[in-house]
Amino acid sequence: MGAYRDMDREELQAEYEAQKRAFDAWKAKGLVLNMARGKPSGEQLELSMPLLDALDSSADCFAEDGTDVRNYGGLAGIPEARRLLGTLLDAPEGCVVVTGASSLNAEYDTLVRYLLFGTQGFAPWVNCEGRKWLCPVPGYDRHFAMAAEFGFELIPVPLTGNGPDMDAVERLAADPAVKGIWCVPQYSNPDSCTYAPEVVERLATMACGAPDFRILWDNAYAVHHLDGARAAHVADIGAACEAAGNPWRYVKFASTSKITFPGAGIAGLAACPEAIAEVLSHMAFQTVGPDKVNQLRHVRFLSGAEGITRHMEREAEILRPKFAAVQEILGAGLGEAGIATWTDPAGGYFVFFRSEEGCAGRIVALAKEAGVTLTKAGATWPYGIDPADRDIRIAPTFPSLEELRQALEVFVVCVKLATLEKLLGL
Amino acid sequence: MGAYRDMDREELQAEYEAQKRAFDAWKAKGLVLNMARGKPSGEQLELSMPLLDALDSSADCFAEDGTDVRNYGGLAGIPEARRLLGTLLDAPEGCVVVTGASSLNAEYDTLVRYLLFGTQGFAPWVNCEGRKWLCPVPGYDRHFAMAAEFGFELIPVPLTGNGPDMDAVERLAADPAVKGIWCVPQYSNPDSCTYAPEVVERLATMACGAPDFRILWDNAYAVHHLDGARAAHVADIGAACEAAGNPWRYVKFASTSKITFPGAGIAGLAACPEAIAEVLSHMAFQTVGPDKVNQLRHVRFLSGAEGITRHMEREAEILRPKFAAVQEILGAGLGEAGIATWTDPAGGYFVFFRSEEGCAGRIVALAKEAGVTLTKAGATWPYGIDPADRDIRIAPTFPSLEELRQALEVFVVCVKLATLEKLLGL
Repeated sequence: MGAYRDMDREELQAEYEAQKRAFDAWKAKGLVLNMARGKPSGEQLELSMPLLDALDSSADCFAEDGTDVRNYGGLAGIPEARRLLGTLLDAPEGCVVVTGASSLNAEYDTLVRYLLFGTQGFAPWVNCEGRKWLCPVPGYDRHFAMAAEFGFELIPVPLTGNGPDMDAVERLAADPAVKGIWCVPQYSNPDSCTYAPEVVERLATMACGAPDFRILWDNAYAVHHLDGARAAHVADIGAACEAAGNPWRYVKFASTSKITFPGAGIAGLAACPEAIAEVLSHMAFQTVGPDKVNQLRHVRFLSGAEGITRHMEREAEILRPKFAAVQEILGAGLGEAGIATWTDPAGGYFVFFRSEEGCAGRIVALAKEAGVTLTKAGATWPYGIDPADRDIRIAPTFPSLEELRQALEVFVVCVKLATLEKLLGL
Repeated sequence: MGAYRDMDREELQAEYEAQKRAFDAWKAKGLVLNMARGKPSGEQLELSMPLLDALDSSADCFAEDGTDVRNYGGLAGIPEARRLLGTLLDAPEGCVVVTGASSLNAEYDTLVRYLLFGTQGFAPWVNCEGRKWLCPVPGYDRHFAMAAEFGFELIPVPLTGNGPDMDAVERLAADPAVKGIWCVPQYSNPDSCTYAPEVVERLATMACGAPDFRILWDNAYAVHHLDGARAAHVADIGAACEAAGNPWRYVKFASTSKITFPGAGIAGLAACPEAIAEVLSHMAFQTVGPDKVNQLRHVRFLSGAEGITRHMEREAEILRPKFAAVQEILGAGLGEAGIATWTDPAGGYFVFFRSEEGCAGRIVALAKEAGVTLTKAGATWPYGIDPADRDIRIAPTFPSLEELRQALEVFVVCVKLATLEKLLGL
């Protein structure tokens, strides 16, 4: 065997038959495996079980400012939870609001406020006909879908390995109908790139057509390192925007969803003091306050930046063998064939895989047929449509190592089979 | 002493001087008391402490459908939490969404969806110029403020003791710009009335100018009985609307905020199946799912409708002496003077107090001067403006019984003093 590009038609045909037999053999096993979901595994969740009894007496239920966390109030969150989230957000307590349990929901609410009320005194965004949103690709499907739900035209911008193509971003941002950009700036979902300092700088300083252009900075993987030697820490968009005289331009988001319990953690946002005041002025109509009991649980359990570092190292110990299995099995199975590329992430939750053009949809369909669920092909593109049909997001965290290895073996066969179908014109 | 109306000027002057001395004596004490907040007391919160360790092992963390509550997913909530909230909402599991911890936030999000996306295929409400909202008065200040924030003109409708004046509601609802009505239908905040069955029926059957008219039915006090003999259970607006062929007309809301821990409980909404499908179709863009860990805690701790009844009886044991103190001290202090009326609620969280016209603002200001914080005068009216300046909401739950008694004594003096100032033209 060797590179497919070096094979003649007869060799390709023989290879196709071999892979078809392998595929049928896998299919016959009736597997039910899943590499679609960016979810922690049960083993990871066990690490956070002390959360459940982090508070165990009435005396335990008071925040440092005397607030009884079991009662109403505290719109912005308790001070120690704002500081804790601030360690994920590179922001001081006063610039952080702990909004709830979901950073996605905090992003949604942020866009709702811009749409209905506007920001900085500018017109509500619902009044902006033909509004547009920049979407670095490959990206997070829920980000794209949310912006589309809110009536934005989604404009793809390629990621370069160092962050979005800033020449493209600067050109597009000159359009006053372009209201903002999604960014997952560190260990990006799914290509795991971390934005380079010069990219952060250009985002902060560029001229924007819309005076209320916003960078929604979802630092979902701020502390999700897999490889200490290659650990990244993205430059702070907040400091950069403030230095550039554009303090309103950014809103940063983070959560503990992939630190403790997804959906049952704490989440929120950081922005400049004036923007935080604006956020709170609207939130006062929305709620009396967030779940402060869960905030205090998290403060006690995670105990500050150092506690988070220790905890995330234990998470990484569970994840490293899984990410290593991806490299090992894809390398062994596909290295020689030369029909795909994939990332070797230093952090985050995903491996980004790129097949030959026109093969991704077929690979995902074949895998499904053999009992392996993958993220839908196209999911990393606006509107779920990958024009080259080649991008696949691999999520290795949730299955057990054994299941993952099986799923990857199946995946390798599906990649080969789909590629051979294409090469042979089947 | 007797009724103020029977006194001549000299008697009123003497009474004024007596009350002024009493006021000055209270003021000299330097009290710091609060009857403003509809919050449970610390003693009530203690009843829910078992919540904090309701889940204590990994095996405990699975919902009845096998969902690991510590991980992502479950947009509508776990089945057993939907059923639990359904007991507060008179709704079956499938018609309930457990949205989070705050029913106010569920109401806010409901209005956001109507504004941005419309409902039932009708136009988004942001497109409705001059949109209006019906506000039964006296009512909940946060309801009114939210509707104003969303650009509705607030239209007051008097409460009659049996619910809103339905002749007025029917007349106003004929206007297509009137998009809906707030209702706190049982032990209403603050006048504690429960809507009569015929009011519920008329709300469900009336002709509405807007085809997407909505009743936002905030049953915040569904199980908050104080007096078993007078316990109310409001007729179900859902059944009434469905029987009337208007199944989309209502959305019901409830939470455990005044059952367990305010802000750290569970909350959500109920509607007809088609409306629930619409809600979930939008929520899918907002969040991956709610905090299911806290849902399961509540299911374990409250253990169904009977468990809630037992728990609320223990709450009522704490609250009854406080509500009795209000009746006793207001009766003793103001009964003879004949200068005010107040409710004797069978449930809920408030006593509604009505002074002579033009006195409420002065009473609240005097009380503040003597160290007793009351709910702002006018708070129970749209825009915070009570045209007759006579309505005051008394919230007796949060202070200790001893503090409450002191606060009420001060209040009585302030009511007399303000009224005498008015009668004497001071």
